[in-house]
Amino acid sequence: MAIHTDKISVEKSKTSKIGNVDFSNLTFGREFTDHMFVCDYEDGKWQNPKVIPYQAMSYEPSARVFHYGQAVFEGMKAYKDDDGKVFLFRPKQNFDRINKSSARLAMPAFPENYFFEGLETLLKLDNEWIKPGVGNSLYLRPFVIATEPAISASPANMYRFMIICSPAKSYYNSAVRVLIAEHFSRSANGGVGAAKAAGNYAAQFYPTSLAQQKGFQQIIWTDADTHTFLEEAGTMNVFFRVNDKLITAPTSDRILDGVTRKSIIQLAEDLGITCEVRQVTVEEIKNASKDGSLKEIFGAGTAAVISPISAFEHHEELFEIAEVEDSYAKKFKQTLLNIQHNLSEDKHGWRREVK
Amino acid sequence: MAIHTDKISVEKSKTSKIGNVDFSNLTFGREFTDHMFVCDYEDGKWQNPKVIPYQAMSYEPSARVFHYGQAVFEGMKAYKDDDGKVFLFRPKQNFDRINKSSARLAMPAFPENYFFEGLETLLKLDNEWIKPGVGNSLYLRPFVIATEPAISASPANMYRFMIICSPAKSYYNSAVRVLIAEHFSRSANGGVGAAKAAGNYAAQFYPTSLAQQKGFQQIIWTDADTHTFLEEAGTMNVFFRVNDKLITAPTSDRILDGVTRKSIIQLAEDLGITCEVRQVTVEEIKNASKDGSLKEIFGAGTAAVISPISAFEHHEELFEIAEVEDSYAKKFKQTLLNIQHNLSEDKHGWRREVK
Ligand SMILES: Cc1ncc(COP(=O)(O)O)c(C=O)c1O
Ligand SMILES: Cc1ncc(COP(=O)(O)O)c(C=O)c1O
Repeated sequence: MAIHTDKISVEKSKTSKIGNVDFSNLTFGREFTDHMFVCDYEDGKWQNPKVIPYQAMSYEPSARVFHYGQAVFEGMKAYKDDDGKVFLFRPKQNFDRINKSSARLAMPAFPENYFFEGLETLLKLDNEWIKPGVGNSLYLRPFVIATEPAISASPANMYRFMIICSPAKSYYNSAVRVLIAEHFSRSANGGVGAAKAAGNYAAQFYPTSLAQQKGFQQIIWTDADTHTFLEEAGTMNVFFRVNDKLITAPTSDRILDGVTRKSIIQLAEDLGITCEVRQVTVEEIKNASKDGSLKEIFGAGTAAVISPISAFEHHEELFEIAEVEDSYAKKFKQTLLNIQHNLSEDKHGWRREVK
Repeated sequence: MAIHTDKISVEKSKTSKIGNVDFSNLTFGREFTDHMFVCDYEDGKWQNPKVIPYQAMSYEPSARVFHYGQAVFEGMKAYKDDDGKVFLFRPKQNFDRINKSSARLAMPAFPENYFFEGLETLLKLDNEWIKPGVGNSLYLRPFVIATEPAISASPANMYRFMIICSPAKSYYNSAVRVLIAEHFSRSANGGVGAAKAAGNYAAQFYPTSLAQQKGFQQIIWTDADTHTFLEEAGTMNVFFRVNDKLITAPTSDRILDGVTRKSIIQLAEDLGITCEVRQVTVEEIKNASKDGSLKEIFGAGTAAVISPISAFEHHEELFEIAEVEDSYAKKFKQTLLNIQHNLSEDKHGWRREVK
């Protein structure tokens, strides 16, 4: 195992772009902070970790990422409390997951010390970009791409790991309407659906654009074989509330093991809400909608936090979900945000302060 | 529909790298010619088509291709005959297919005139890189990547189309040994398997590396649901010869519609060889191997042309395929190469001379 003890070098940006950013009016993922973290893999080793001014970089046209999609990423957030303290939420989960994604794509694992030192160095330099207040956050995007300039269809020998940061509000603000997948699919058994592999996302764009033409914002994916089991949305895991019980699909090699999802399962237990982790059929949810027992559906993910779903369509039939008084979605969202923003007790040790 | 009538601008390289290249000893996809074709999509339009010196280019870290794998490609070859004439093989097929791939990934179609004018301009400038003689070719790699610098998970508004060229010998020289997929899979029903989407290839690297550790070069993928139907290899379609009959799987949304495959189906007809295009089971081929009726298996694709398969393993059982006298693989390879290199009649009009 290569040893990774290089010190992270820092080159500060001479000017800041922060004055040009309207923090009350942010489009997700368009504005980036003044710095970024970069580390290259060469000769079997991650080398030269550095924080440098955010900038474009040069790539050979034959860089393997352009041809064979060897690319994985993560999505996390940094939060600031009113005292100016900065927190990450369960960041070790993201660290572990990016390496799990990399392994599935035959990419080398990134060292834990570089991941956290890089992230923390970056957050200290770009501290001003993290705004306090619930709803504000700095979205963090670690990613790894294959840079080797050769187009043989095999794992690359050169990679670049980066972290870039983008100030964010919650991704979806209002309730979303979704289409249940009947023809297209997101992932296969034995495929890469459980990895945050770049190619999984592009694959969803076309079906999602068809859904959008019909007036739906997202798709809930079903199993590719039978389209009878509800799996997850494009960037969110999905929960169904039938009467007072929650149901969510089990993770598998088709479904991303979401940090928000697993946090909600834990919070449900804390709150005494039954949460069944099991296969859930389209039929069952349609029936629950018809007999009035379906109270809520919501998506859960870092970008959107919790995203209530107000309607779904299946086989050209539309099912509307009326707002409920004691919404679980609202309760979980509030509970999560309070933990993330240091406004409540953190009994599971999910917050990690960046000092 | 945007009109695409910009003239292709040309900037010639001041020096040539060709003197540094050992054409008798080429590794696939490592050396590139002196020029490349580049055209950008912005404001709803492909613009500024140009042939420029082969070079690295600058990309924002937020370029969407790095995050969501919006990237498709093609693989074609240029051949030179002994009179120095240059030919492409069924290039319209590749042009149509890259746009089909793009459509599946919610990417804009590339205009036909730019595709062919760009390609031909490039081939004229880099003519010296195309060596005559059967077995030599210039591998051409058109590809499209999403360049928009914003990480929202939706189709980009900015793209780059490029063609790069790499001198090549046939990809696999000797017979390959393959593993039949039993756990991992390449694509899902309703997925992007029929597209030459970048992410499809990275997804195969890890399972293929496991196969390689066991002494196999490639995997023959099976259907993700049951692993009972034989589909295709990583970069080749697959043909089975049982007695004197050929069998190949039908194309579907899981299988790439290969140009070599469809040419072989036609050549088989020309040669009076029965070719059944139908689902083919692992069981059937194992049985045929056991009773001696399995004569050949071979892969078919632009890079490898025809690649004989000498053994396959399934459920830990190894099946060896002895060499046959009147090999179809050899016959098809020779017939194809003769057409490609202008050594035989081209009754289907597959050759396209680059003038
Ligand atoms: C496909 C997919 N499912 C689910 C999620 C939610 O995961 P997490 O809660 O870790 O953000 C994401 C986004 O991260 C995702 O991309
Ligand atoms: C997945 C896959 N199947 C089959 C093929 C063969 O297609 P073609 O004969 O058009 O090169 C290729 C390569 O191009 C491929 O990538």
